Amino acid sequence: MSADRPDAVVPGPVLVVGCGLIGTSVALALRDLGVTVHLRDASASHVEIAASVGAGSPDPVVSPALVVVAVPPAAVVDAVRAALAEFPEAVVTDVASVKGPICAAVTDPRFVGGHPMAGKERSGPMAASGLLFEGRAWAVVPTADTDPEAQALVERVATSVGAVVRRMDAESHDRAVALVSHVPHLVSALTAGLLTEAPSDDLALAGQGLRDVIRIAGSDRGLWVDIIGSNADQVGGILDDLATRLDDLRSAVRNADGSVGEHLDRGRAGVARVPGKHGDQPAEIATVFVSIDDTPGELSRLFAAVGNAGVNIEDMRIDHELGRPVGVVEVVVQAGVAEHLLTALTERGWAAFR
Amino acid sequence: MSADRPDAVVPGPVLVVGCGLIGTSVALALRDLGVTVHLRDASASHVEIAASVGAGSPDPVVSPALVVVAVPPAAVVDAVRAALAEFPEAVVTDVASVKGPICAAVTDPRFVGGHPMAGKERSGPMAASGLLFEGRAWAVVPTADTDPEAQALVERVATSVGAVVRRMDAESHDRAVALVSHVPHLVSALTAGLLTEAPSDDLALAGQGLRDVIRIAGSDRGLWVDIIGSNADQVGGILDDLATRLDDLRSAVRNADGSVGEHLDRGRAGVARVPGKHGDQPAEIATVFVSIDDTPGELSRLFAAVGNAGVNIEDMRIDHELGRPVGVVEVVVQAGVAEHLLTALTERGWAAFR
Repeated sequence: MSADRPDAVVPGPVLVVGCGLIGTSVALALRDLGVTVHLRDASASHVEIAASVGAGSPDPVVSPALVVVAVPPAAVVDAVRAALAEFPEAVVTDVASVKGPICAAVTDPRFVGGHPMAGKERSGPMAASGLLFEGRAWAVVPTADTDPEAQALVERVATSVGAVVRRMDAESHDRAVALVSHVPHLVSALTAGLLTEAPSDDLALAGQGLRDVIRIAGSDRGLWVDIIGSNADQVGGILDDLATRLDDLRSAVRNADGSVGEHLDRGRAGVARVPGKHGDQPAEIATVFVSIDDTPGELSRLFAAVGNAGVNIEDMRIDHELGRPVGVVEVVVQAGVAEHLLTALTERGWAAFR
Repeated sequence: MSADRPDAVVPGPVLVVGCGLIGTSVALALRDLGVTVHLRDASASHVEIAASVGAGSPDPVVSPALVVVAVPPAAVVDAVRAALAEFPEAVVTDVASVKGPICAAVTDPRFVGGHPMAGKERSGPMAASGLLFEGRAWAVVPTADTDPEAQALVERVATSVGAVVRRMDAESHDRAVALVSHVPHLVSALTAGLLTEAPSDDLALAGQGLRDVIRIAGSDRGLWVDIIGSNADQVGGILDDLATRLDDLRSAVRNADGSVGEHLDRGRAGVARVPGKHGDQPAEIATVFVSIDDTPGELSRLFAAVGNAGVNIEDMRIDHELGRPVGVVEVVVQAGVAEHLLTALTERGWAAFR
């Protein structure tokens, strides 16, 4: 994604402070647009690596139009204040996962709190990519003090690197990320933590359901300790709510009184509220199962068949437990085309079923 | 998968009692092997539908070699006892998700408790497929009373329909499924239940992590109420353990004392213990991200490229939030080939990164 006029995106050089995954990725994305990017990091080797992958220049910059502070959460406030002081003309933004403490500490009109909802298990400048923000939400968090032109600049930058801007106040943001990101992460870790002492024979019965629940528990521990720590109030409040519901569920299980069903009903209602592929409507999807030989090329042939049927794939799972050479692929499609796809695949000789 | 000699699988007709998803799927799988199958169900229309999809004959059977009882959990003990009485020569097995109560209630040497670890969100005979058990675990639960020849027959049948037999005692089975299936299901439902009152704007920040955690909460409510009910002791015990860990985590969050990290560490350790694609070793996998246009055929071309690089796909996620036409595909491969794949894809012009 390139821009004919990089100055239409940002009217001057950008300084990225903090060359980790997010900072370096922002830098790469801006460089792809032709923007001049300078890099800074407490670690000279991080700067060197980021520069070596094309993220920008390690040379000092005199007058950046924008400073993107992408340092670890605990260092953000100091780094933002230092940037505001060092560059009196620049807009300053950050990318930290929690906005309340930062927006409360920094009331300068030139500061615009932000948070790109992007990331991956690997961290550091070597893991960076200019594509990291494609289609992701980027929260922008103006306060009563924020200069609207500064806000407009940050929103333009976020949009230019492929993200979708979500404007919200700091408290709403922190509550939202606690609910959709921080607490699920902790729930996943708690559930996975139950397995550490289990006999291997027990774990041999594990299926895709368990794998889905515990998947995000494998993520970057150090970063998550900081994130949870900076959003402790919101996270703590939701965990308290969760504990109450868990106690209720435990009673329901012990008493065998049928109210377990109410917890399951609430779960289904919650799932239905999460937006699907087409933005704001919860997904109306269906699954077509296909049994395939688990070898290179087989999946490609299957997707060629799906593509030839004119069907778009919403999501996919590969169930391949127990080291078998045959696996079942779950192809998730729009509900309205599932029957058509089943017919099309079966006619081509695929072992498909619903 | 066919057998040259169906009587090598089972030496006579099979009667399936209960033509739901599992019963009808077992029937279909056996029919594919050339085995004679008869069908029975309290609902005449279920029998009719199962027969219409080729699962077997609705006519009475005189002397089945095997009776597979696949009725709802609460009805299993009575149905097993009735079958043992009606067919004094037959081996009788069941497919219920919880084994303790049934194995305690039925001590006849001709009864062999079993549990195929298979299923899907849709239920009933129309959802059935003979491929349902391919590569899945099938727990076989002999007791001190079980006739070894009866056990051998059931194991032969499970293997013939594509499953991998896991022999275990009833208590170990029930504890295992509580841990790897029942409790994760409830955890998923509790987490999804937190979302029912959330503002839609909050949910717009939802990402793949949340979706993974809450995915299984969408499943068949009625069946799960029965399953949880019949495994209440094991499930309750693990929920108690979970509640203790949750309380510990809540304190850690409130006190900001760094012990949140210990919970995250335990989570990572748990994830590492779950077997991956090749059976007993935890997976050593890596992810290659690819940014693609989200249109029919694009995914197929990507997988053709992956196949041409000689790389097998272990798993996949499609991140496609916010209704954007561009999405990021997470291609999960064996760790040792990730760099090779990245190079191969990049050389072909794919927007790939790690």
